[in-house]
Formats: sequence, structure tokens, C-alpha cells
Amino acid sequence: MKQRSALDMYSDGAAWWETAISDIKKNEIIIRGYPIEELIGNVSYTQMLYLLLCGEVLSEKKAKLWESVLVAGADHGPRAPSIAAARMAVTCGISFNSCVATGINVLGDVHGGAVEKAMHLFYSTGSLLDAHPEKGLSSIVAEQFERFKNRGEKLPGFGHQLHDDDPRVRRLYELAQSLIDEGEIEGKYLKIAEEYRLHLEQSKKKKITMNIDGVAAAIQCELSIPAEAAKGIFALSRGMGIVAHVFEELQNGALIKGPCPNRDDLVRYSGPAKRHFKK
Amino acid sequence: MKQRSALDMYSDGAAWWETAISDIKKNEIIIRGYPIEELIGNVSYTQMLYLLLCGEVLSEKKAKLWESVLVAGADHGPRAPSIAAARMAVTCGISFNSCVATGINVLGDVHGGAVEKAMHLFYSTGSLLDAHPEKGLSSIVAEQFERFKNRGEKLPGFGHQLHDDDPRVRRLYELAQSLIDEGEIEGKYLKIAEEYRLHLEQSKKKKITMNIDGVAAAIQCELSIPAEAAKGIFALSRGMGIVAHVFEELQNGALIKGPCPNRDDLVRYSGPAKRHFKK
Amino acid sequence: MKQRSALDMYSDGAAWWETAISDIKKNEIIIRGYPIEELIGNVSYTQMLYLLLCGEVLSEKKAKLWESVLVAGADHGPRAPSIAAARMAVTCGISFNSCVATGINVLGDVHGGAVEKAMHLFYSTGSLLDAHPEKGLSSIVAEQFERFKNRGEKLPGFGHQLHDDDPRVRRLYELAQSLIDEGEIEGKYLKIAEEYRLHLEQSKKKKITMNIDGVAAAIQCELSIPAEAAKGIFALSRGMGIVAHVFEELQNGALIKGPCPNRDDLVRYSGPAKRHFKK
Amino acid sequence: MKQRSALDMYSDGAAWWETAISDIKKNEIIIRGYPIEELIGNVSYTQMLYLLLCGEVLSEKKAKLWESVLVAGADHGPRAPSIAAARMAVTCGISFNSCVATGINVLGDVHGGAVEKAMHLFYSTGSLLDAHPEKGLSSIVAEQFERFKNRGEKLPGFGHQLHDDDPRVRRLYELAQSLIDEGEIEGKYLKIAEEYRLHLEQSKKKKITMNIDGVAAAIQCELSIPAEAAKGIFALSRGMGIVAHVFEELQNGALIKGPCPNRDDLVRYSGPAKRHFKK
Repeated sequence: MKQRSALDMYSDGAAWWETAISDIKKNEIIIRGYPIEELIGNVSYTQMLYLLLCGEVLSEKKAKLWESVLVAGADHGPRAPSIAAARMAVTCGISFNSCVATGINVLGDVHGGAVEKAMHLFYSTGSLLDAHPEKGLSSIVAEQFERFKNRGEKLPGFGHQLHDDDPRVRRLYELAQSLIDEGEIEGKYLKIAEEYRLHLEQSKKKKITMNIDGVAAAIQCELSIPAEAAKGIFALSRGMGIVAHVFEELQNGALIKGPCPNRDDLVRYSGPAKRHFKK
Repeated sequence: MKQRSALDMYSDGAAWWETAISDIKKNEIIIRGYPIEELIGNVSYTQMLYLLLCGEVLSEKKAKLWESVLVAGADHGPRAPSIAAARMAVTCGISFNSCVATGINVLGDVHGGAVEKAMHLFYSTGSLLDAHPEKGLSSIVAEQFERFKNRGEKLPGFGHQLHDDDPRVRRLYELAQSLIDEGEIEGKYLKIAEEYRLHLEQSKKKKITMNIDGVAAAIQCELSIPAEAAKGIFALSRGMGIVAHVFEELQNGALIKGPCPNRDDLVRYSGPAKRHFKK
Repeated sequence: MKQRSALDMYSDGAAWWETAISDIKKNEIIIRGYPIEELIGNVSYTQMLYLLLCGEVLSEKKAKLWESVLVAGADHGPRAPSIAAARMAVTCGISFNSCVATGINVLGDVHGGAVEKAMHLFYSTGSLLDAHPEKGLSSIVAEQFERFKNRGEKLPGFGHQLHDDDPRVRRLYELAQSLIDEGEIEGKYLKIAEEYRLHLEQSKKKKITMNIDGVAAAIQCELSIPAEAAKGIFALSRGMGIVAHVFEELQNGALIKGPCPNRDDLVRYSGPAKRHFKK
Repeated sequence: MKQRSALDMYSDGAAWWETAISDIKKNEIIIRGYPIEELIGNVSYTQMLYLLLCGEVLSEKKAKLWESVLVAGADHGPRAPSIAAARMAVTCGISFNSCVATGINVLGDVHGGAVEKAMHLFYSTGSLLDAHPEKGLSSIVAEQFERFKNRGEKLPGFGHQLHDDDPRVRRLYELAQSLIDEGEIEGKYLKIAEEYRLHLEQSKKKKITMNIDGVAAAIQCELSIPAEAAKGIFALSRGMGIVAHVFEELQNGALIKGPCPNRDDLVRYSGPAKRHFKK
């Protein structure tokens, strides 16, 4: 995408605020062309999100598959930094939405962000396969796999610090497989993801499972969702858990909750010994 | 809710982090008692949110009604401060999730926050009615209405700076009415809301319509959703629009987008005339 | 302050963006009337902040006293929620400024927010004293003190969960006293604060010390700083610590740092026992 | 910097929270070894920030030079996205600190972030010069300049969308020059920056001035400030302006301030024409 100063774009005739998403007039709200009252009650949460993001309404079956991805990522307990930060925010007395924003603000490249990286990998592998069908999936994946290895980078979508047989991953695979069987999705990106898993397994010489980021990425590629929006989508998924944890902490009524009790095994000062300041 | 220092709670035997929402172990994720793999693909987005927030699974019909509320609030164009702030954030080069957080951070008491206030009003009016059924709804509402008037406060849930016949409101009313007809919801809070509308109309001597905050509040009361969580729920509703607008602005590629062009009719300096500083 | 819709204000002739703080033109930056190049190198951080906030340049001695308040609040270690949240943000991979924003976002009513409440109390007590000098400070404070007690509210500015003889408080008092002795500040609000401390001590029948919020509030009242800005000012004070801790965590290189290790005494699930979901 | 999972670090014996910045005990606050009461009133804002960030107290003259940089960046009016977003936040009814956080959250790579990039450039150029003094500054800069050009990247620290003779830049140069003359700073990085300016001027065949980011970067390099912290430092500089603008908007009392009035030349819908949704 070409980047330019907003001022220059305006000088060249662009409106300052221009959008193809919605048109708001008195008593009329148009979303991607549709009057909103025709959408309310007729489209699901994920259909509405897809319409806003991509411009068209996703089929019900595809929308349900995507909804499964959002449900799967909804919570991972109070030890996830996003949840802990949001709960700590509550105990400092800020607005409920600002607590939610605190949690979402930290869902960056490292915490949930691997979905975006995996989507870029799967999309680019798919493009290479389209451009060079004669090479075959396995050798294209092998090449990409080597490039990651040579750059010392971690392949996104594999491995988890806690789970090695994540129940969410198995379940999402089953659901995706049903839609492949029904011809609703092609299965191309799930195959690409599986091929990377195999290469990684062979390279590491041990059982490797895809993680939740990897399977979420493959499914979202099947649905033509833009990779760049992945962190925003995850914000709406984990956002459910954040809202629930913020509410629970609010009911709990604790004030000024730091991360942990003040014990020497948990909190340690490693700076200079006491010294005196002379001006 | 009683508030206490987190330190005191811990001294009294509470775990530092305690939650009834989820239990996370190796290869096992339990949400409110349910293994997550039994939820994925079986519960919708709003059912999952309700389970996380309230502890039980909402019926499909009720969940669909709530989903309609979330769909209805999803976007109100780039002139809404939440959307504009998020789009401006993109042009400053921060992470997608941080752009979304910027938008959600401003969905405070004034911008979407009337839902919470209206829910508190409707719930407390419902409690008064339960405690004093002999008074009747109309006189209870009349009393509350006077209290708002005397305090010089605006009744939450009515009036909109742009719409006076909001298409979202009409549609949500229809959908709620169907569920009342089917006996799925009682309709108590929708009646309370309508009674306030009538009082306001009589007081103002002009046609008054409920706004989107008011109807969302009444429906959420029908579903026993906690008022305190309303701003968090709206964050997940408007969050859809924020994600889409962030993505659109990112594709647009503008850098450093301020709020408007630098024209004298839009930006004005009203401070002291030029003067000189002597140390 | 009277609140009105931004749209209505514009309809009545206000510019959409109007400010008395700064005027920005090509190669000219005017701050409260002063060309910025006359300020740079001539005013200190707190003098610049005061000029931006209040419109005039604070004397050097007063500015130094205020600077002491900002220095005093700069850090309280990684167990403060603001610092912990910011450090956790780093380990999730977001932009440095977004980590700082995460920390500042939680400096709300409860975490540092007592300064604002104490300033409101001290200013309003000062106004009562001006209006009724015949009553005397002690009886005015006694009345206000009773009102807090009757409402079951905590008097802001006294007591700390850790310190009962905070070294910052003693030092700030000394510095303020020097300026009273030199006639630079009047000392009115420090006397008011001390009077509240005495009343609280007599009421609790034990030694009570002012906390850092209380002494910061009294000093800021001496300098005619607006109470409403207190949380913003504290953001710039604690912001120093946040910046340093974010940098330290970044150098540390930890990824996905939750609040604490996963031990049963620290993290506990208290929800329903395992159950199965049937659709 | 090597990145590792926080869990792995803990398994290897690290405390969960470890810091060399501060040690907090009952009635004792140690900052980098110094009791805080010896710092309060004796160190300035920038000396405290440097101590927290870098571990030692900066000389008064150097601290004053750095303070000049912070003062210079304090405000650029309500059309800067950071200021506009913070003011819009106020009108949505969130906490003062959350408004400040909203502004700081958007001070990312593009909005103020060039300081960090320029510091990395100047530091790495300085290292090349140390390693290959025989090459001379001009040829080292020429090489780096070509590399930027070949990658199609913009050289950080030069050019501004509004100013071409920024009064802040001239003034900061003068102040830095005085400290070079006094032998307080070496001037190495200011020379490097100037060399880049000359190369850019020759390449573009027109007068090029350093921008505020460039001169701030060069000065901060002279003071051995870590480049990675530059966005955090700018947050504390622009934070002053944000606090003042938030306060002004709060006094103004406007509600729901979007970015601009709803005029066709400013806000444009470019999506599909009205169409109907059939389920």
C-alpha cells in the first residue's frame, strides 16, 4: 500500500474523511449499500463484521465457521497479559470501556499477533502455488520453510507454551473439515498449514501440533479475510473474555491490584546498593 | 459492591488471582465448567459472551435478539469520535489492536454510555414495581421522571442529535415484540421504557422517540444482562465498525491524518496576541 | 461547567476546533502568545506545563516546588498496577508509546486519583474560609470532616497501604515550608491540609500522616493549579517511571509476561465443576 | 536483545518481577540506589527521568539541554492527531488520565516516531566512524545515504509538512552549540546529522532543513540516551500539550465532538449505492 501525507491527499481532491463502509444521514444508516434495518435480525455478528470489513455478506455456513474461531479465542484466563491488565485497570477506577481498551491495547504482535503472520505466510504460499503449480505444494513449502530457518525466525502458528494438544485446535479442524466436505470452502490453506506442520515435525524430529493461531489463520484465509485485520478480529474474540473478567473484577471490589503479592521470590530489586546523593 | 484493598483481601486468604470464568490447564480449557471444545461450533458469539459474563448459556432465540442489538450498534460512520480516533491512530503508525483500543477507549459515559444509565433506570423502576405493585407502572414512572427533572438531569435513552425516527430502533422493537409474542421474554422492561417515552412526550409536548441506547437497554434488561457491563458490550458492538474503519484507513495509506483541513472556519486560535518572553 | 453538544456549539458560531493554547503557522509556533523559540532553553518543564495549562509562566521558585512534586511521584516499583501493566504490554509486542499509554490509562480515580479529590476538598475548604472568616479554620474543617464521615467516605490524602511515614511527604513539606518562609507561597492550603490531618488523628485516636497524594494536592493548590487536571499531571510524573520500566522490560526481552507464575496459591478457579454442553 | 518466554526465564531462576530501577519498602523508596528524599528538590524533571532510565544523574547543563528538547515538542496544536484524539476523548466522558493515554497511544512510528529512527541512524553512523576513522565522516554518510535511497526509504529527521525553517530547530541548535563550546557535549552526533542534511540537500538540489525530530535525535545521542526509549520520551514532552488541551476541552464542555462538521466537502461516502438485503 502506498503511503502519503493526509494533507497531500486532500490537496489532490480527496475528501478529508471518505469511507465506503457506511453512509449516515438523518433517519438513514446505510452499511455497504444495505439499509441497516434490513441487516438487524437477519445477519449474525460475524456476517455483520465481514460485511463491514470486506463489503459483502458471508454465507451462513462460512459465517458459522468464522464464529467458531472467535468463540475459540474468547478467553485464556487471568494469567494472559491482556486479561490481567484489564482486571488491574478495574481496580484503579477507570471506565469499563477503558478497562477493555487496556486489555485490547496489549494484544499486539506477540500476544495473538501470530495469526496475522501465519495468514501472510499461508496467503503468500498459496500465491506461489498458483504461480508455479508445477513445483507442487511440498517443495514450495520446503523452500519457504528453509527461508524462515535461515533467517532464524520462528514459523508462526506452531507450538504453545502450555498446550501440546490444544482441544480448540482439534475442534476447529473438525468443523473446517465438514465445510470442505460440503464444498463450502476449498481447503487450500488448511492443506498449506498442514504441510508446514509436517515439515516442522520432520525438522524437529518430534510431534508438532498446530496452535490456535495457526488454525485460526488457515480458516480465515479460506474465508478471504485480509491478514492485516487479524489483530483487530482477535480483539473482538478475546474482547469477550476481557469484558467478562472486567465485570468479575468489578464485582470483586478489589482496589489497586498489583500483579502479585510482595514476596522476595516474586519481586526482586537488582539495582545499585543504597548510596547518597550530593547535589 | 464493597471495595477493599487487594492486599487486605490477600491477607484474608483470597488467592491473588481468582476467577469463576475459566480454568486453564495443559490441553484443557474449561469455560464456566464446560470444556471449550464442546462450545466451539455449538454456541454463537452472543451465547459465548453471555456464558462468560453471566455463567449460563442463553437460549438461541434470546441470543439472536441480543445479537441484533450488537449488529445495530456496529457503526455510525467516521464522524463518530470513536471511529475518527481509531482512524487517526492508524495514520500515526501504531499496531492494529492499539488502533482498535484507541477507539474503544473513548466509548465512555457520553459516547454509548447512556445504555448503562438507562439499564440502571429500567432495572430500578422494575424493582420499585415489584415492591409496590399496587402503585402501578404509570405512577412509579411519573415519580422517577420528576426526580430526573428536579435534578436537571437528562433522561437516558431518549433523543438523538441526528435521528428522530431511527430505523434501528423500529427494527429492534419489532424483533423484541416477536419474542414477547412467543413468550421467550416477558416484555416488562420494554413496557417500562415505553412508559418513560410517554411521560417525556407529554412533558415536552412533542413526538419523542426512543434512541438506540434506550431500546438496547430495555432489551438487555429483558435478558438479565448486568447494567455495569453495558459499556463493555457496546465496545464489542461498535468494535466491529472500528475494526472495519481501521482496515479501510490502513488500505488508504494516509499519514498523520488530523481531524480536518487547516481552514480558518474550522480551526481558530483564541489565546493572547503575540508577546515576548523575558527570563 | 455547562455541557453542550459539539454540533450545537458549531451551529451557534464556534469554530469546530478552537484553542487559546497555541497557534501554529508556517515557521511560527506561538504558545499562549509567546514565540516558542523564546521559551525553549528559558523555561523549565514545569514552567512550560504551567504556561500551557494555566496561560502564564510560573516563577522559578514555584516551578521548582512543583517539579519536586513531579519527581516525588515518579516511581513506586513494578507492583504498582500502572507499572506492571506497562511492562506486561512490552512483552506483548506493542509500540513503546502504546506501552506508556497502557500504564497511564490505569492511573484513574483509585491509583493516583486521590490528588484531584484532595484538591477539590482543599479548594472548597479555602472558599468556605474566605466566605466565613469568622468561623475559623478549625470549625470549618470540623464541619467538612463530619460530612465525609456521615457519607461513609474516606478523606482523600491520608493513609497509605504501605507507608506510615513516607519519606517523600516529609521532604515535600520541608521544601514547601521554605517557600512559605520566603513569602513565595501563602501556605493557606498546607494549613488546611494539616488541619484535616489533626481532625483525622483525633477521630482515629492514633498517629495519622498525610500521604503523597495529600501533600501533592496541598502544594498544587498553593500554585493555583486546577484540580481537574491533577490526574493528567500525575500521568506526567509517574510517566517517568513508566518510561524507565518499559525500557528495562524491553531490554529484558521477556515474551508474554503474565502477572505471576501459575501456582495454586496465586491463581485459583472458583467456577462450576466440569460439566458437559448439549446443544 | 534476545527474546525469551517469561515462563522460561522464571523456570531458569529469574524472579517474576525484577528491576534495577527502584526498591520499595515500608517508609523507604530507593531509586537507582538513592533514597528518594535526597532526590526530591535536588534533581530536575529531566535529571530524574535520566536517572530512572539510564541509572545515573545527568549534569545540570546537559539536563537543561534535554529539557529544552522536551519543551520544544510540547505542543503542535489541535490538528495534530494526538491532541485531537485526546480532546475528542474528553467529549466522550472518560477519565482525564484515559484522555491523556488516548493521545499518547497514537504517538507511534509516524507521529513523533522519527526521532527513534534518526537516533538509530546517528548512533550506527557514529559506530561506523569509530570503526573506520580512515574513511571519514562524509564518505560514511554518503554510503548510508545511498542505502536509504536504494531501499526507497525516507531519511528520518528531515523535512516537515508545514515548516521549512522551524524556529524550534534553530533555537535547539544554538543551545546545543553553546554546550559544545563549553565542552559539555562532544558534538559528534550533531556533526553527523549536519552531514546527512548536506547530502540530502545536494541530492535534492534545494535547501533542506533538519526537522524537530532530527535535531532532538542528535541532541539525545549526545546525551547517550537509548534510541529505543525515544517514543516514550516524546510521550512525556507532547504529554504536556495533551494535558493542557484535555483541560481546555473539559472547560469548554462540548459533548461528542467528532473530527469535523458534516459537510459534503469534508465527509464523503464512496461505497455501493443503496441495495436491499434478502436473507
